[in-house]
Amino acid sequence: MQFNQWRHVSNFLSLAGLRTERLSSLVTRKLHGLSGTRVVTINNLSFNYPKLEVLSRSIMATAGDSETKGFRIGLVQMDVTEYKNYNLSVATSLIKEAVAGGAKVVALPECFNSPYGIQHFKEFAEKVPGGVSSMLMSALAADFKVYIIAGSVPELGDDGKLYNTCLIFGPKGELLGKHRKIHLFDIDVPGKIRFQESEVLTGGNSLTIVETEWCKIGVGICYDMRFPELAQIYRQKGCDLLVYPGAFNMTTGPAHWKLLQQARALDNQVYVATISPARNEKAGYVAWGHSMVVNPWGAVVVEAEEEQKVVFADIDLAYMQQVRSQIPVSTQKRTDLYQLASSKDA
Amino acid sequence: MQFNQWRHVSNFLSLAGLRTERLSSLVTRKLHGLSGTRVVTINNLSFNYPKLEVLSRSIMATAGDSETKGFRIGLVQMDVTEYKNYNLSVATSLIKEAVAGGAKVVALPECFNSPYGIQHFKEFAEKVPGGVSSMLMSALAADFKVYIIAGSVPELGDDGKLYNTCLIFGPKGELLGKHRKIHLFDIDVPGKIRFQESEVLTGGNSLTIVETEWCKIGVGICYDMRFPELAQIYRQKGCDLLVYPGAFNMTTGPAHWKLLQQARALDNQVYVATISPARNEKAGYVAWGHSMVVNPWGAVVVEAEEEQKVVFADIDLAYMQQVRSQIPVSTQKRTDLYQLASSKDA
Repeated sequence: MQFNQWRHVSNFLSLAGLRTERLSSLVTRKLHGLSGTRVVTINNLSFNYPKLEVLSRSIMATAGDSETKGFRIGLVQMDVTEYKNYNLSVATSLIKEAVAGGAKVVALPECFNSPYGIQHFKEFAEKVPGGVSSMLMSALAADFKVYIIAGSVPELGDDGKLYNTCLIFGPKGELLGKHRKIHLFDIDVPGKIRFQESEVLTGGNSLTIVETEWCKIGVGICYDMRFPELAQIYRQKGCDLLVYPGAFNMTTGPAHWKLLQQARALDNQVYVATISPARNEKAGYVAWGHSMVVNPWGAVVVEAEEEQKVVFADIDLAYMQQVRSQIPVSTQKRTDLYQLASSKDA
Repeated sequence: MQFNQWRHVSNFLSLAGLRTERLSSLVTRKLHGLSGTRVVTINNLSFNYPKLEVLSRSIMATAGDSETKGFRIGLVQMDVTEYKNYNLSVATSLIKEAVAGGAKVVALPECFNSPYGIQHFKEFAEKVPGGVSSMLMSALAADFKVYIIAGSVPELGDDGKLYNTCLIFGPKGELLGKHRKIHLFDIDVPGKIRFQESEVLTGGNSLTIVETEWCKIGVGICYDMRFPELAQIYRQKGCDLLVYPGAFNMTTGPAHWKLLQQARALDNQVYVATISPARNEKAGYVAWGHSMVVNPWGAVVVEAEEEQKVVFADIDLAYMQQVRSQIPVSTQKRTDLYQLASSKDA
């Protein structure tokens, strides 16, 4: 079963131009790392990958600029279908495109491997880590030497419960964090949208912060974005970027998607990135799209439309510090009058 | 001195068509109430005011509609000059206009009696209550039987310190609350705007909630709006409407004024009203204007442009409850993971 999973993963890797002919001798090491709780350092494996052909993009001009304290993030707004294999192959191709565009952090949408809908979660659920989506993302992160914030997948927990879970892999393919959606999406706007995740999913019990060489990143999933306390705690704990894979719909999307992330960004003076599936009008749940990055001034840096696309933004930490010193709200808080605390460490 | 102040107030009252010929015999009672800490019930005074001529406005059609659980608020976006008497007479006239338009709650801008600028605060400062602006607002509230949220005035505290203070009077002219701006406006955006209130003002130490027959109202002033915790505490304590008199400028206004109030409204599912002075390009500090009301869905209900104007919105508490039941974030908060508390009761 696990051997088959790895064969499966290797097929996707070859899609990205990654040769897998020496795979058989390495399978055991791979599986050992991925199925256990220890970090897997996939880049020690002696795969000989063809050199990536870097796409020529105008934005490349500023990539790696030593004046800029920061990095480029790539948002993969992808089509998600009812076919997991197809979804994983699309994700693989677009992650490659994001890397070619200079992204050091690549982020995928909520439910990138599964259609979004409570009737699908059980069928698409996987172990995290251990499932094919985890293995693939880990391998891609290691192979491309980038961070991958793998949107979310339906997770089958060791407790037999289902979660909506985001995986974050580091550039050695190591699992840096795993965020189980804390706030389940239970809403009912009559005649517009009704959705009750809690009918099949269980909410997570932890905040999730991962460290990179540039900054700390706080992770939430979709509906988590409606709860300002989560973002405020992330900021308190030193995050400079918040990433919310999400799938707002055609009611809440136009009304709240942009506003919520601008609010989180401005109030906390952080960058905020959201990543949605592309819009599919024929899907049971029609996603709004409009993946975007908002800067610490509350301004939109980049915004996708509704179709499949990789978009990029440079996370400029020097600019962020400038905003924080100009309007120093974080040091002006009246903690003698109000206090926000978290009871669990991220 | 106080007798002169009352004579002064009576002049403004007559501007609003309020007869004051029996004033002399009543001065003692008025002053007693206003200068002490006890509530003053001005409407017991036997003034005989001419009946107000109600302006015909299309929006009047819905006023007092028994289907609507709520009330109308009037925002007085007024010109503020360097002449206190002129400012008070403009405020008086526009409050009358707001009442004629059906407003049960009338709100004025930050620094409605004084130009906004640290060089002016000392000269314009008054005792609160006790000063002429307080007395006038109390009398107008009682005479018109409405709530007046009197933006703010520079206050000379009993401790000799200066505060930026909002007064809230009930329909009997009683002082319901007094909000001293908690977060002082100290920002420095090079080449754009530098302002340091703390050079002359002292920050308040209390939250301010007032009760009306419709709902509780939480009050903040301008820069207070940048601190989401204040609004969140107000919501926790049962406020349905947040009112922020404010004077954003030509840098922060277009960037943040609307976004901040939409954020407060949506995150807390409350109505938010902001009241700015009208824009005066020749003033030392040029206000953005754009007084507005945002509903609990985060949508703008009414928005003034930059010129002097009274604008109205109906605060629909039934609609608010609908939004809260459709997207029930207040009951979905994960207080096992984060907690927001206030250390002082409002």
